[in-house]
Amino acid sequence: MTAQPVDTTVADLIETARALDAADPLHAHLDAFLDAPGVTAYLDGNSLGRPLASVPERLAAFVREDWGTRLIRSWDEQWMALPEQLGDRIGAVAIGAAPGQTIVADSTSVLLYKLMRAAVSATAAADPARTQLVIEAGNFPTDRFIAAGVAEEAGLELVWVEPDPVHGVTVADLAPVLSERTALVVLSHVDYRSGALADMAAITAAVHDAGALMLWDLCHSAGSVPVRLDECGADLAVGCTYKYLNGGPGSPAFAYVRRDLQAALRQPIQGWWSAADIFAMGPAYAPTAGIRQLLSGTPPVTSMLAMQAMLDLIEEAGIDAVRAKSVSLTDFAVEACDALLAPLGVRLLGPRDSALRGGHITIGHPDFQAVTQVLWGDGIIPDFRFPDGIRLGLSPLSTSHEETLTGVLAVRDALLARG
Amino acid sequence: MTAQPVDTTVADLIETARALDAADPLHAHLDAFLDAPGVTAYLDGNSLGRPLASVPERLAAFVREDWGTRLIRSWDEQWMALPEQLGDRIGAVAIGAAPGQTIVADSTSVLLYKLMRAAVSATAAADPARTQLVIEAGNFPTDRFIAAGVAEEAGLELVWVEPDPVHGVTVADLAPVLSERTALVVLSHVDYRSGALADMAAITAAVHDAGALMLWDLCHSAGSVPVRLDECGADLAVGCTYKYLNGGPGSPAFAYVRRDLQAALRQPIQGWWSAADIFAMGPAYAPTAGIRQLLSGTPPVTSMLAMQAMLDLIEEAGIDAVRAKSVSLTDFAVEACDALLAPLGVRLLGPRDSALRGGHITIGHPDFQAVTQVLWGDGIIPDFRFPDGIRLGLSPLSTSHEETLTGVLAVRDALLARG
Repeated sequence: MTAQPVDTTVADLIETARALDAADPLHAHLDAFLDAPGVTAYLDGNSLGRPLASVPERLAAFVREDWGTRLIRSWDEQWMALPEQLGDRIGAVAIGAAPGQTIVADSTSVLLYKLMRAAVSATAAADPARTQLVIEAGNFPTDRFIAAGVAEEAGLELVWVEPDPVHGVTVADLAPVLSERTALVVLSHVDYRSGALADMAAITAAVHDAGALMLWDLCHSAGSVPVRLDECGADLAVGCTYKYLNGGPGSPAFAYVRRDLQAALRQPIQGWWSAADIFAMGPAYAPTAGIRQLLSGTPPVTSMLAMQAMLDLIEEAGIDAVRAKSVSLTDFAVEACDALLAPLGVRLLGPRDSALRGGHITIGHPDFQAVTQVLWGDGIIPDFRFPDGIRLGLSPLSTSHEETLTGVLAVRDALLARG
Repeated sequence: MTAQPVDTTVADLIETARALDAADPLHAHLDAFLDAPGVTAYLDGNSLGRPLASVPERLAAFVREDWGTRLIRSWDEQWMALPEQLGDRIGAVAIGAAPGQTIVADSTSVLLYKLMRAAVSATAAADPARTQLVIEAGNFPTDRFIAAGVAEEAGLELVWVEPDPVHGVTVADLAPVLSERTALVVLSHVDYRSGALADMAAITAAVHDAGALMLWDLCHSAGSVPVRLDECGADLAVGCTYKYLNGGPGSPAFAYVRRDLQAALRQPIQGWWSAADIFAMGPAYAPTAGIRQLLSGTPPVTSMLAMQAMLDLIEEAGIDAVRAKSVSLTDFAVEACDALLAPLGVRLLGPRDSALRGGHITIGHPDFQAVTQVLWGDGIIPDFRFPDGIRLGLSPLSTSHEETLTGVLAVRDALLARG
């Protein structure tokens, strides 16, 4: 007990942060990332993951030794196989998918389009009465926008689920809308705002019970939350590689199609890379078998390099250890926000129970848009979410507890400075 | 006159090549490209352009100083504008398009899909009797495959034009198939096999006279043949950036939509990057005005870096000077093939008149598949085109006349060695 309760709280939190960092078995991996001069807390790893320290030379060596020297020969020697090889690695390291079901290509939006189109066509062919596409009202905009477009062109009805804004979508939320008319359900595994973690196994089972297909968006879970697609019997999934897989700005997305569904699905953008024999260049299109059928144009090789370093690191750490650190970071962030920010009117906008949460938390306050601008200028970098949310994306392998506390303290100071 | 006519021919050709190189005003630009150890002739710049020498450090510096240091802030500071900025630069430097009409995104195949879908929807809305999509039988496979898919989903009839295999498609070839039923015509400006150069102005005018829209594939012309889209009144175009724009393997494509068509077109993959306000994340999709409506997902920033160095170089040289060098290279290649390869049964598979030709030539011989394998192992790198073509892609800024001759001599030696 002292005369300065707030400062004691801060001192206690600093001590806690240091103790947690000292006990963190993954702490040494922080050194694998490139230093960011002037940045004292990077809390937006779920918008854009940081580059590993090996990446500048990896890209330079690629240009010198691979593109620049092997030239066109590298397509045969290595690049041709890259979409599937990287897909299989993501499958093994991050999303629980056996080989031959995951591919790296395009962007999340384009792959969402391909998978939604393929799924609703296949469902309609099997049962024309299935005319509803179910989407969550709070899903990330691109998922909703693409779904609206696909529904319009396929003549489907868009059915909205309105889940709890804090805890996300549950089987109970879905039950009233699932029926013999449901063609496809599209949900995010981790909500991009609240961080709510959906129960993939239970929801997938409920959708299957209704006879429909399930498409999971893994953008905010792949690389931080263990995903077990095969184990859950998931049908389809997409995800991005520039968040917790640290692929760099605009690195390509990945798509998963369960092996025994692949023959029944046909995506609409039937470019030459999806053809059975891409160099035959024959008169008529015939799709290749397997997951490569999801390709369209030439794979973006240069944008596929950086993520390889992160996949190595996640594999070395193990995704379950990554999740344990992620839980420790978000639990500590909630503790610090409760102690330092709640007295200033800041609310936690997501689940309090770490078992129901992904790798980020979002907190709310009316001044947060202005606060974020101040913080960014000072090298404290959270994400702002319209209208009043600050999102702390705590990428487990590149973020420490002390860095997290630095960010929360900076939010407090910025709020106090506004008076 | 000597007793050894062949060797004299070779000596004369070497002298000619050196004289042409000495007189080449762009010869010094060869030094701008990265050395490729072990490669004595790279003759496949129209499959994959070589990296400029500045590119390894450009990519490394991007990771260190931009992605790694500015982190998420770089989206606001510079990356957000990149698709349109690069599009405008390509428009100015290579394809004759005023600002606001060109955007860099996705792959050629995905952009072909978007533009074909947008075009046939707009045409059908204006005149439901326009139910035919015209495509050239010899067009690059992805153009034909995507067109076949779009025709199938839109309920259109695919109409094939069979042009002369050497000289490509002309107004005379098109005239019989153009009518009040034509919705869209899709052609390549330069044929990927023969190198035949289509008359863009005359063909565009003929298609417009029939009341249809014209979509040009510029993959084999952008960066080597001056393209004058605005001047020709072209409607739509796509092209790739990894050939004569040296963007690296799988660098994104570009699309052009004539300004006064933009409001009438709506592409189907309505991801968040095509929304009017991408961070509002509102409930309903509303497309943005202008060329950014063609975007879908997050732009592939890392794959958009290398091409910037090449655009600088083309701008410095000037596209008309680039074309003059290109004509000199292909004319000399034809001369060398006539002298050294024709006696061995090799045929020129494209136009003899340089005014009717793009930046590459294709020659034919039944042994060329085996010959190409030998050459690739020896660091002589042309492209093989099934079933019996060798394509010499003479990227004007990175290829010399002497290098071209080295390649032709190696083809001769490989054929002679086969006896």
